Amino acid sequence: MRNSKLASLEEAILRSGLKDGMTISFHHHFRGGDKVVNLVVGKLAEMGFRDLHLAASSLSDVHAPLIEHIKAGVITSISTSGLRGELADAISHGLMEKPVVFRSHGGRGSAIAGGELHIDVAFLGASSCDELGNASGCPRSENAKSICGSLGYALPDAEYADHVVVLTDDLVPYPNVPMSIRASRVESVVVVDSVGDSSKISSGAIRDSKNPRDVLLAKQAAKVILNSGYFKDGFSIQTGTGGASLAVVKYLRESMVGSGVKASFALGGITAHMVKLHQEGLIGKLIDVQSFDKVAAESIASDIAHQEVSAVDYASGQHLGSAVHALDIVILSALEVDSDFNVNVLVGSDGIIRGAVGGHPDTAEDSALSIIVCPLLRGRIPCIVPKVTTLTTPGRSVDVVVTEYGIAVNPARPEIAERLAAAGLNVVDINALCEKAMGMTGRPDPLPFGERVVGIVMDRKGGILDKIRNIEQ
Amino acid sequence: MRNSKLASLEEAILRSGLKDGMTISFHHHFRGGDKVVNLVVGKLAEMGFRDLHLAASSLSDVHAPLIEHIKAGVITSISTSGLRGELADAISHGLMEKPVVFRSHGGRGSAIAGGELHIDVAFLGASSCDELGNASGCPRSENAKSICGSLGYALPDAEYADHVVVLTDDLVPYPNVPMSIRASRVESVVVVDSVGDSSKISSGAIRDSKNPRDVLLAKQAAKVILNSGYFKDGFSIQTGTGGASLAVVKYLRESMVGSGVKASFALGGITAHMVKLHQEGLIGKLIDVQSFDKVAAESIASDIAHQEVSAVDYASGQHLGSAVHALDIVILSALEVDSDFNVNVLVGSDGIIRGAVGGHPDTAEDSALSIIVCPLLRGRIPCIVPKVTTLTTPGRSVDVVVTEYGIAVNPARPEIAERLAAAGLNVVDINALCEKAMGMTGRPDPLPFGERVVGIVMDRKGGILDKIRNIEQ
Repeated sequence: MRNSKLASLEEAILRSGLKDGMTISFHHHFRGGDKVVNLVVGKLAEMGFRDLHLAASSLSDVHAPLIEHIKAGVITSISTSGLRGELADAISHGLMEKPVVFRSHGGRGSAIAGGELHIDVAFLGASSCDELGNASGCPRSENAKSICGSLGYALPDAEYADHVVVLTDDLVPYPNVPMSIRASRVESVVVVDSVGDSSKISSGAIRDSKNPRDVLLAKQAAKVILNSGYFKDGFSIQTGTGGASLAVVKYLRESMVGSGVKASFALGGITAHMVKLHQEGLIGKLIDVQSFDKVAAESIASDIAHQEVSAVDYASGQHLGSAVHALDIVILSALEVDSDFNVNVLVGSDGIIRGAVGGHPDTAEDSALSIIVCPLLRGRIPCIVPKVTTLTTPGRSVDVVVTEYGIAVNPARPEIAERLAAAGLNVVDINALCEKAMGMTGRPDPLPFGERVVGIVMDRKGGILDKIRNIEQ
Repeated sequence: MRNSKLASLEEAILRSGLKDGMTISFHHHFRGGDKVVNLVVGKLAEMGFRDLHLAASSLSDVHAPLIEHIKAGVITSISTSGLRGELADAISHGLMEKPVVFRSHGGRGSAIAGGELHIDVAFLGASSCDELGNASGCPRSENAKSICGSLGYALPDAEYADHVVVLTDDLVPYPNVPMSIRASRVESVVVVDSVGDSSKISSGAIRDSKNPRDVLLAKQAAKVILNSGYFKDGFSIQTGTGGASLAVVKYLRESMVGSGVKASFALGGITAHMVKLHQEGLIGKLIDVQSFDKVAAESIASDIAHQEVSAVDYASGQHLGSAVHALDIVILSALEVDSDFNVNVLVGSDGIIRGAVGGHPDTAEDSALSIIVCPLLRGRIPCIVPKVTTLTTPGRSVDVVVTEYGIAVNPARPEIAERLAAAGLNVVDINALCEKAMGMTGRPDPLPFGERVVGIVMDRKGGILDKIRNIEQ
């Protein structure tokens, strides 16, 4: 191939003009199976780079090796949607001098499009790519080693970064059509052994739950939807991470079949459940920023009605055409909900970071009906609390909170409370839920936070929503 | 729908902030059937706008009403790939004070992406659109009135214009998936009676020819391909406008079936011939910047291996990932070819503009093998000439010229001349062809050009390739 962009990782880095102090970016479509971040940062460390800003769409427990690169000064700042595992623990305890900047998926898209988050070099993993750089999360040959489906979170990086390096574990003949990342946006193509372990894309927060409490919450949430006034022909739906949230579609199916009500589209993290309903004709279109499992990834590879969208087109608050603006119903989970309906999906009740902002505030704000499914307690830890440890989604964006002890409706939406009560659902005051939780566990002691800011939670418009302080032993 | 972007044309114009002196843009996917340019410019004239720069991807004989708007000072400059009919005639005779700027399709894409051609407000016709602005050239409902397929020439406008107005003759429910123009790029959606007459998309320069000379030239060009050294498994091909050029694929088919040689992709203006070969498994992928007929437009609506690309991804010289960089063979037509292999596809031998630069210089330069099919004479007008009236594709980009009196090969490609001669094809010197033409018609008198520059032909990098002067009676 003339004009081949093939390079070794080191050549690609040299060609990129990367310098100390610059910003590098990554996507998280392989979730816990990602192999690109550690590989690239390891190489950058080896090459002697320092003081880099790592801007990932999200990070997870697989990225613990970053701890050493942070200690060595290779990485000195991080932007991400979330953190989990050892890395999150170390950062919560004060590993980094500069606070980690947390953005929602829509917020990150907007920040990249608007220039507040400028990416110097993007390193983007792809399950197939040709020598000119047409890249996809779908496998395209018998030699394919991975699949992640939509590359939605990588698309703003590909579009706005100064320099784009695609890493792939399957180099295929030109043209790799249909492509997610267009060759005209790509400077180098690097072939690697593996960009990710696809068996882990439905691990962690997006596994299919068999937990009886999750099943109960999912069934309750389905009843809320059916009686909310928003369950009508042409409605649209999204389910966020978390077993109960993801399972709602499964329990909605029966009512859809029975009533003849069909959804116009499902949005967001697309799941096998949604693909099934789509194939049955119950959901018209699938709008996919991230394929939550292998079935979804395989569907996007072959179904013209299963549309990949970028994080901007998915959930930007600044772009009125983004899909969340057309979303009727979203079901989301939470680590904590407080009596003002504020939600925390980022920091555990022990003060340690263990989650991700994700599309939570984007979808909660722009949807017509946002439903949070959240148990009253997890073990001995209360989840409905007087005040969230960290604010990630403001209460004004939250309409309904479903717990195993009753359903709380935001007082700003009295018509929904009326409809649910009329349907015989157990509508309760959120303060009563909070008091019940406190009564069962006792009011927790204040957390031993220090004075140092280890994380900043940005709102969708680029303002500061909350700060996370270091946790002391 | 919340956040609907619906507006009347006048409201959309007011909302756009358009001011006198600004640049407006249009695409030409409906070719001779376009109804958007005249509608919008008529409204702008009615609203009192003046001194506008009209930047269309191309203009044709249907745009004669622009003459009055130019005379009235509404439009004072034009950028386009081509001009035909009364408008071209009037401009050739000096209608406008400022010269028209002609760019190739790839050159226009690059100029928009690079900021040299800044678009203030794009007015883009679509055969379907939802209220948030997801737009497509494919019909999506029973009420559809038009179809144009790929919106490839509109995509740079949608991506880089400050403000985007989509006009549609079929408003469909959200989400209009798959979309060509993404809602996040669109500010207003205007419903109109008709965006274009689809029966005319295969009119003019892209009709299927029954002309015996075209058939002869096409068959000869097919023989050139078969013996050029580039006809091997995995080759790629594009055919430009003009009956002979378009028909080549038809005559190549038999050899492909017989030899088992398959094409990896076909590029560019996609035709029914190409769709047929693709469906038969003879062409792997279709990369479509413009659907040349209704069959192609219907194919792109439903076939995941039929990929829409923007003008940038198609033919930018500045983006090494653009598809022309992977193109093996292109067959193009010409108004004139001269003895230095220079090509003119824009200005008639009478000095009057009657064509379009199109993707000619882009594909000729970047392909591995460029073949021009051109009769020695058209009527009493010589087409192989000592010097082209206007230079649109430099001779260094042209490899082979096929005429009914023999095949000329650029001396820079002696290996191709050898292969063709060895295969028994009638390889002749281009000077001999030129002399033969001159001998048959006599050397034409010099054209009565004036001193005024009425057109500037830009090269792919934004430099000036040639100037067109006014023609006097």
